Amino acid sequence: MKMDSRLILALDETDVPKALHVLDEVCGIIDAVKINWPLILSAGPEIITTLSQKADVICDFKIADIPNTDRLIIEQSVKRGASGVIVHAFTGTDSLKECVSAAGGRDVFVVTEMSHPGGQEFTAKHAEEFAAMAAECGASGLIAPATRPERIKKIKESAPGLLILSPGVGAQGGSASNAVLNGADYVIVGRSIYGSSDPKDAAQKLADEIKALRF
Amino acid sequence: MKMDSRLILALDETDVPKALHVLDEVCGIIDAVKINWPLILSAGPEIITTLSQKADVICDFKIADIPNTDRLIIEQSVKRGASGVIVHAFTGTDSLKECVSAAGGRDVFVVTEMSHPGGQEFTAKHAEEFAAMAAECGASGLIAPATRPERIKKIKESAPGLLILSPGVGAQGGSASNAVLNGADYVIVGRSIYGSSDPKDAAQKLADEIKALRF
Repeated sequence: MKMDSRLILALDETDVPKALHVLDEVCGIIDAVKINWPLILSAGPEIITTLSQKADVICDFKIADIPNTDRLIIEQSVKRGASGVIVHAFTGTDSLKECVSAAGGRDVFVVTEMSHPGGQEFTAKHAEEFAAMAAECGASGLIAPATRPERIKKIKESAPGLLILSPGVGAQGGSASNAVLNGADYVIVGRSIYGSSDPKDAAQKLADEIKALRF
Repeated sequence: MKMDSRLILALDETDVPKALHVLDEVCGIIDAVKINWPLILSAGPEIITTLSQKADVICDFKIADIPNTDRLIIEQSVKRGASGVIVHAFTGTDSLKECVSAAGGRDVFVVTEMSHPGGQEFTAKHAEEFAAMAAECGASGLIAPATRPERIKKIKESAPGLLILSPGVGAQGGSASNAVLNGADYVIVGRSIYGSSDPKDAAQKLADEIKALRF
């Protein structure tokens, strides 16, 4: 995955022509596109391949199953063109190790504390453990919430070598600047870009905001 | 979902003609068929509709996301013909409530303690809390491990009115009889049926084993 604008588009638009239009508009700005199951259920798994021809695709499948099933999901995602996958850690070390092995060198990003209110009930309690497990199992990075930027810093300290990707910017209330200033390497933005009347302009403004912090 | 043989087929075969052949062989015996993401990634989401014409389909998607994404996944699964979905509870009460609401009366089954070794690291610690949350949020039932039948009994006590579905029978080491004797209402069996040279005979033997315990 590139490390240029540090911006990842969460393409949670399930209308396929609209999704493709948004990606065409912003693929020169973003570093990667993140997709989730609703798009697969609406467009079919071929959409992974289609999108991967325009940008690096991270399959945000929040994989959380037994090791054998995790492996099958990741192998098929990679075969279809995914550059990375997002997985849960609370299924245990054996599942997480199998995910990293199945990815065969593609990026595995591990969810720590989730960005929505319910994320504080269980995931927050174990976020630092999940981060340490991710480092131990050979993952590339962590997902940590832009909605709670002070948590990004704590989670980063639990696994210093790993990349931090932060969702929750925009519609969910998080700020790109706060996330980056607290240690996020990439920010993940969805509705503020794909729901904008001018997705390219929205993405460029966010990219400029992030760039201004770093130089 | 019927409550006749108390047997659910985990159709983890990703070769579509083989999967359809197995289901044709056993659909008169099983109460439902459970499918997972690898089949969707291999066959496309239309497979949900195809299978739903032969048996009740439980989408074992281990849904574990923020509320809005959970809703989109479940709405599309139901639209395609799912009778039930399997979801995680560790994403918190708001996510779980949204799952039940999105299912619109279809069954929502909540994972408690997972059946693989890694399931003991985090899910076992919170299994009784997950069971109580499932009852509180209006779920239909729980997933509890046939590989640890003594845990089925404890988990059932945490949510007395809910159905218990137990995976891990056969290839993973659990026994259908032990699961049912400890409180499972349904057992979920995969490889021992779809990997058998005679799936119909394998399913019938398991159905007979379960029936013998109850009468």
